[in-house]
Amino acid sequence: MEIQVAAAKVGKYASRESGDTLEMIERPKGGLSLVLVDGQHTGRGAKNISNLVARKALSLLAEGVRDGAAARAAHDYLFTQHEGKVQATLTIVSVDLVSETLLLTRNSPLPAYIVRPDGVAELAAISPPVGLYRHTRPVIDELPLEPHTIAVVYTDGLPLAGVRRGETFNVRAAVERLHASGLANAQTWADRLLAEALDCDEHRPSDDISILIVAVLPRQGSDEARRMLVRMPL
Amino acid sequence: MEIQVAAAKVGKYASRESGDTLEMIERPKGGLSLVLVDGQHTGRGAKNISNLVARKALSLLAEGVRDGAAARAAHDYLFTQHEGKVQATLTIVSVDLVSETLLLTRNSPLPAYIVRPDGVAELAAISPPVGLYRHTRPVIDELPLEPHTIAVVYTDGLPLAGVRRGETFNVRAAVERLHASGLANAQTWADRLLAEALDCDEHRPSDDISILIVAVLPRQGSDEARRMLVRMPL
Repeated sequence: MEIQVAAAKVGKYASRESGDTLEMIERPKGGLSLVLVDGQHTGRGAKNISNLVARKALSLLAEGVRDGAAARAAHDYLFTQHEGKVQATLTIVSVDLVSETLLLTRNSPLPAYIVRPDGVAELAAISPPVGLYRHTRPVIDELPLEPHTIAVVYTDGLPLAGVRRGETFNVRAAVERLHASGLANAQTWADRLLAEALDCDEHRPSDDISILIVAVLPRQGSDEARRMLVRMPL
Repeated sequence: MEIQVAAAKVGKYASRESGDTLEMIERPKGGLSLVLVDGQHTGRGAKNISNLVARKALSLLAEGVRDGAAARAAHDYLFTQHEGKVQATLTIVSVDLVSETLLLTRNSPLPAYIVRPDGVAELAAISPPVGLYRHTRPVIDELPLEPHTIAVVYTDGLPLAGVRRGETFNVRAAVERLHASGLANAQTWADRLLAEALDCDEHRPSDDISILIVAVLPRQGSDEARRMLVRMPL
């Protein structure tokens, strides 16, 4: 078995900076956690907010705090700092090697998708963003760590792709299409979803778009090495 | 211009866990930092130490603390926690978009290499590991962020490859060979170095090996997307 993570991230067209933050950290007892945050508005202000939320969640996860508690703490922190005036969506995807589960912890109005050989499941339960209301709680989905499981998570720039032309991007339909085409690695999922969204947006994204794929697959490589690749155009 | 990061990491043969920790974080004012820590000994104990040191450095970098101060703080923390009885090597490689520099901050007895079109430079100044002596300071190298610059950083499992057969792996010679062959992306650098080392070790690494390549290159892709790929065999 192997875990594959693929992320692709573009900023709003003509905006200097994406307001989304994506960070990864190794879990202290094994496995990894990915934290995806979309800060309110765009540009520098949004980036500061998403950084703040991601950093809080990340530092707690790194200390072994469980995902739900880390999400609550990130909320409390933002709520306290900004007195309920600033919001962000927060999604944590964890591969937990202790419980042998894939864990999705979401404070987001957007559904996530779980793709398995027998079809696409929508995690439709939504939850309030962090920062706005006093007792905000995340929705948590826990899945067994089984090969051929692909989690698809994203920020609202993805469904908003095409909005300038009066259209929106149907994420579920796109995920179904990719599932039908039998894609088998995380990178292709992320690249295809991003390419379709950019086409919809005529390559000038109406909002920051971040796509995160976490896949549990049969082992594909021949060696035991863990690998990470990052590409960051300047 | 684009930044490429490639990392490859294997654990000591027949050891359940690598004692090396590698983490990445986005810098709050732009750019990214990579933190590579090799904890004393191998297995779970080493992993706990390297996690502790990496986490401390990482959380400070995420708050905008400068690299040298983060390294000193990580040292002070380990020194205080373990009363000078436990050591780790610590290397921070940062792409700082504010100062437009590539920054290497090292507490390590191992040299690092900077590859440019005109040749390979050895950052030969070494510095004590963190955790052992009261006033430990890192060595810091600051380079302009110019295309065709490749930084090669690693843990001691790389030069120790082959030690079971009474040999060692000449990292500098390997880097010179790769430079002569005109490699132009970070992934190939990491993969080739790891493959050579594993050959030397007869595919049973004598120690944890981590290789980190941070490259500043002319832009290669056609889109503006930032991408991350992770592969983690279980």
